[in-house]
Amino acid sequence: MSEWISAARAAAEAARNLADAAREKVAESIAPSGQIDAALADRHQRMLHGFAWIATTGEALSATAAWAARANASHAFAEIEELVLRIGFGEYCAQLIGGVPMSQSEIARPFELGIEEAAARFAKDEAVARFFARGNTVETRAALAARLAKGERPDERLGDETLDMIRDQFRAFTANRIAPHAQAWHLADALIPIEVVDEMAGLGVFGVCIAEKYGGLGLGKLAMALVSEELSRGWICAGSLGTRSEIAGELIGENGTEAQKAKFLPRLADGTILPTAVFTEPDTGSDLASVRTKATRDAEGDWRIDGAKTWITHAARADLMTVLCRTDAATPGYGGLSMLLAEKTRGDEATAFPDEGIAGEEIEVLGYRGMREYTLAFDDFKVPADSLLGGAEGMGFKQLMRTFEGARIQTAARAIGVGWNAFDLALTYAMERRQFDRPLIAFPRVSDKLAVMVAELVMARELTYAAARHKDKGERCDIEAGMAKLIAARVAWSNADANVQIHGGNGYALDYAASRVLCDARILNIFEGAAEIQAHVIGRGLVASRLAMSESAM
Amino acid sequence: MSEWISAARAAAEAARNLADAAREKVAESIAPSGQIDAALADRHQRMLHGFAWIATTGEALSATAAWAARANASHAFAEIEELVLRIGFGEYCAQLIGGVPMSQSEIARPFELGIEEAAARFAKDEAVARFFARGNTVETRAALAARLAKGERPDERLGDETLDMIRDQFRAFTANRIAPHAQAWHLADALIPIEVVDEMAGLGVFGVCIAEKYGGLGLGKLAMALVSEELSRGWICAGSLGTRSEIAGELIGENGTEAQKAKFLPRLADGTILPTAVFTEPDTGSDLASVRTKATRDAEGDWRIDGAKTWITHAARADLMTVLCRTDAATPGYGGLSMLLAEKTRGDEATAFPDEGIAGEEIEVLGYRGMREYTLAFDDFKVPADSLLGGAEGMGFKQLMRTFEGARIQTAARAIGVGWNAFDLALTYAMERRQFDRPLIAFPRVSDKLAVMVAELVMARELTYAAARHKDKGERCDIEAGMAKLIAARVAWSNADANVQIHGGNGYALDYAASRVLCDARILNIFEGAAEIQAHVIGRGLVASRLAMSESAM
Ligand SMILES: Cc1cc2nc3c(=O)[nH]c(=O)nc-3n(C[C@H](O)[C@H](O)[C@H](O)COP(=O)(O)OP(=O)(O)OC[C@H]3O[C@@H](n4cnc5c(N)ncnc54)[C@H](O)[C@@H]3O)c2cc1C
Ligand SMILES: Cc1cc2nc3c(=O)[nH]c(=O)nc-3n(C[C@H](O)[C@H](O)[C@H](O)COP(=O)(O)OP(=O)(O)OC[C@H]3O[C@@H](n4cnc5c(N)ncnc54)[C@H](O)[C@@H]3O)c2cc1C
Ligand SMILES: CC(C)(COP(=O)(O)OP(=O)(O)OC[C@H]1O[C@@H](n2cnc3c(N)ncnc32)[C@H](O)[C@@H]1OP(=O)(O)O)[C@@H](O)C(=O)NCCC(=O)NCCS
Ligand SMILES: CC(C)(COP(=O)(O)OP(=O)(O)OC[C@H]1O[C@@H](n2cnc3c(N)ncnc32)[C@H](O)[C@@H]1OP(=O)(O)O)[C@@H](O)C(=O)NCCC(=O)NCCS
Repeated sequence: MSEWISAARAAAEAARNLADAAREKVAESIAPSGQIDAALADRHQRMLHGFAWIATTGEALSATAAWAARANASHAFAEIEELVLRIGFGEYCAQLIGGVPMSQSEIARPFELGIEEAAARFAKDEAVARFFARGNTVETRAALAARLAKGERPDERLGDETLDMIRDQFRAFTANRIAPHAQAWHLADALIPIEVVDEMAGLGVFGVCIAEKYGGLGLGKLAMALVSEELSRGWICAGSLGTRSEIAGELIGENGTEAQKAKFLPRLADGTILPTAVFTEPDTGSDLASVRTKATRDAEGDWRIDGAKTWITHAARADLMTVLCRTDAATPGYGGLSMLLAEKTRGDEATAFPDEGIAGEEIEVLGYRGMREYTLAFDDFKVPADSLLGGAEGMGFKQLMRTFEGARIQTAARAIGVGWNAFDLALTYAMERRQFDRPLIAFPRVSDKLAVMVAELVMARELTYAAARHKDKGERCDIEAGMAKLIAARVAWSNADANVQIHGGNGYALDYAASRVLCDARILNIFEGAAEIQAHVIGRGLVASRLAMSESAM
Repeated sequence: MSEWISAARAAAEAARNLADAAREKVAESIAPSGQIDAALADRHQRMLHGFAWIATTGEALSATAAWAARANASHAFAEIEELVLRIGFGEYCAQLIGGVPMSQSEIARPFELGIEEAAARFAKDEAVARFFARGNTVETRAALAARLAKGERPDERLGDETLDMIRDQFRAFTANRIAPHAQAWHLADALIPIEVVDEMAGLGVFGVCIAEKYGGLGLGKLAMALVSEELSRGWICAGSLGTRSEIAGELIGENGTEAQKAKFLPRLADGTILPTAVFTEPDTGSDLASVRTKATRDAEGDWRIDGAKTWITHAARADLMTVLCRTDAATPGYGGLSMLLAEKTRGDEATAFPDEGIAGEEIEVLGYRGMREYTLAFDDFKVPADSLLGGAEGMGFKQLMRTFEGARIQTAARAIGVGWNAFDLALTYAMERRQFDRPLIAFPRVSDKLAVMVAELVMARELTYAAARHKDKGERCDIEAGMAKLIAARVAWSNADANVQIHGGNGYALDYAASRVLCDARILNIFEGAAEIQAHVIGRGLVASRLAMSESAM
């Protein structure tokens, strides 16, 4: 076994200790009584979120160490894997000491959390010191870039033939059917052609996680992550077409009545029903528990929906809406919310929203095109009595939060795909473009970017797969999903940014895919829970579980 | 005097010492013989550029300390100035120790340069430690955000009535004539209306630095920076309209024959001639010395231009081209290049390039719209014999490099303007938008971003003004100009990014200016010398001047 693999395990362990130290400090500040005080959590938000980022960085290290060990066990740990490991650990260990970028304007540094001593201990840890000195260096980055230029890629096999086959299948599909057209579809602000949607349906994209007995593939979130990653590698839209089916499929699969399952799941799985996720409102984005769109029962027991929604992706071409709405006006918080499964008529270019009681307008966007976003106004829109998800009133928010776990893992996977797209474009350009008599990749500032792009992709990917495996066990995993989404979105964005920079002026031209990938990448830090919301979920969750543990130990 | 001002001076001094230590290390690596070895400079590029970023950060601290002292001397150093100083120094000192972000994927850390000891000394410096502990804290950031929300802004007066008046004048013009229309002009990908160009001409925008005897305002680069900053605060295009006039004006003013000055300067100054800067070629961007477009003399002594240029801003509507071309085919490097002042016919919507011998195509772009970029193909395009700038063959490159100093200062000022635009939008949105029952600005992750945006803007601005003052002394200042451009472009980009994040989903909508400002900001790290090129110029320049000093001391 490479000395680096054991070093990686040890460094990941050290990172966990560092995160634990941070957690103690945060708990002292926001839960002095042994319970989290929401007002204190807000006041010490920077600290709490800094801790979330530190813990996330540590988990990325753990997941990457596990990847290396697995690769090694299957004799797939060779030079390129070692280089990725060294560079990735070198970089993230250095971030843990010097500061983890939460955004370009906010760096989480040990002293802010009062963990300077723990950070100093971390820096002195033998394994960490080794990565520091010989991990992320001029030489390792150059060596990695050279291997990448030769077409080598770090091991991505999953030790499961079906999964590896799925990856190959979707990589080929993306290369043939998506990548060649993505730029044109993006520039035209066109809906992705329905034929392509149908082909994807044929491949099972919309039913990856739907049970076989309902016509789905009956696979888990790991498979879903793979599919999303590979499709997004050609265009984020392709990797996102399945998002709403995944959400609707899980909402119904986990919570639906038998009749709802039988009615919707098979048609979701084969793509005859395209759903849309109707949660956000003009005044309510991050704070979903405050949703105000009302659903009231009429005399026949049917529902009437009234209110304004916004940012609804693929709404016009959808056949089914999963609508989060307030069915109990008297209960203000999340307890008054329910989920309705509201069918609608698919719109076309002439009439986007044919149904009475629904009006919608397109919101033009920077990227993430191909499905279009809409505002929706419901005016006494009628939905049959049996549309309440699981027949359970007041459960909408929790049903949704569980589902968001899968959606966030899926979003992390999309981010990885977008990040690879950026890398693929950057590598090709850096090898072809010459300046000062040499290919760009000959310059360290260019090869450094390429090397770090790949190292971070592997780390974010492995964290995402780890979250997917966790979810597949059926356990609550909003923390794990949040971590994956948090870091993958940052990596997609930094990779897209680096890709533009490597392209120079051409990266700014609409004709080059680099400019599109930049625009596409920017959404990932915003939707499915903005970066700040993920940090909140992670930080609060970790502190709470620690408090719960100490309590149960008493 | 506030204790913080003397601490700032001391910390800036300590930063300079740190940069000096870095310079010694870099010199050992790239100039072992006492002369810079270009191959070694390439091999150790990361180190060289890391040093450039460290030195730049240090200079930003010096310039900011000087600002504080000046403000203090004029009794303008109050609470908000102190907060900006503390946060700015706290942040940049922490970066010097923990890592300076050169890009999102590349962080320059002390250990890479072998200056851990110097960094440890720096960290222990009394003034630095003070900023570390009490500079950039939860409390100072919240206090700064609160003052910003009340409409307070850090002192921006320049101790010169004319300059302060110019700022006011252009701020008002921008607010009235530019800001209300920028978004629509951007979305329409329209040329900025010629009436607006004419109004700007009336205000003297195109002749700020042109001598009074040629009809200009006869002001210096500091005034030019102010004008550019204020116009860019509404739209980068407005602040960029003058860029080409500034370049042409300086090229001619500094190098032209008396006839060329008399012919062109007055018409440049009053805006009757709009020039365009024709340097970049499809195969030649950063490495301008390799330009291949040829100019040959015909029998009458007139010039014939042949070749392909690209990325030429405002080319169609321009009347005069400053063309960098190879007049001596036998001399490959910069020595064979000359600058031609080539008049052309202004195009219109129907015919963009009416002249025989010039063909052009628009390049569609992400942002920086309003003037349009073009490829240009010259086919035996005829230019009269007296068009050679200064009548001096082979001087084109050096003439241009001198001029780029001013252009880069101007670009830094544009970046500051764009960064303010992002801040202005972010502050307004954060105060208006409510979530979780509170305005966004009540959340530390939002107010932190706002505070750092302003602190960095002040630091980048003061570095830019310092470079402008330097240039106004007539000294070579590619290092200072490069530093200003380097950091201002990063700040514009991080601010634009933070602004989008604060806007949440709305930041991604084309209807919100936040999405435009993001696109506009992205160009600043690419053109007028990409970030990597500035780091090269700065790093190499500082090492060389140090070597020269030691030599002359011998
Ligand atoms: C292209 C696109 C597609 C989308 N598709 C869908 C869809 O199909 N269905 C759907 O329902 N929604 C969709 N959304 C909406 C998306 O989920 C929301 O934009 C997102 O949840 C953020 O909400 P918001 O935009 O209202 O931002 P806000 O909630 O207003 O947040 C603005 C900023 O403030 C920060 N912030 C908010 N609260 C806090 C706090 N307490 N502490 C610190 N910071 C805070 C946020 O992190 C963010 O940076 C889409 C959005 C976009 C842009
Ligand atoms: C909107 C826009 C407007 C423009 N307007 C004009 C104009 O009016 N007139 C004009 O003449 N030009 C103009 N330009 C061109 C601009 O100046 C060039 O794009 C810029 O100089 C970079 O050159 P390039 O695009 O060829 O990139 P390249 O030189 O190909 O560089 C690509 C990447 O490689 C990096 N790189 C290159 N060499 C090295 C090295 N030795 N070491 C490390 N990294 C390196 C660069 O930093 C960059 O990241 C414009 C460009 C744009 C996008
Ligand atoms: C901010 C946010 C995390 C909720 O915060 P909140 O209002 O403080 O709500 P809580 O986290 O306290 O959750 C409320 C309840 O749901 C439960 N819950 C939350 N997440 C859960 C999960 N993943 N699994 C099971 N239960 C969950 C909580 O335990 C709590 O239950 P309790 O009151 O019985 O203890 C949530 O609104 C959110 O994710 N916002 C982002 C919106 C988004 O992603 N939109 C994308 C649309 S495409
Ligand atoms: C990369 C770059 C800095 C030049 O690098 P280079 O080819 O190594 O050239 P050098 O820096 O060695 O300069 C060549 C000569 O010009 C001189 N020179 C360079 N900058 C100068 C300045 N600001 N003032 C005076 N002389 C200057 C050098 O001293 C050198 O002269 P010497 O040979 O007599 O010593 C230059 O090509 C550049 O700025 N590229 C970016 C292009 C750009 O900004 N485009 C924007 C178009 S809008």
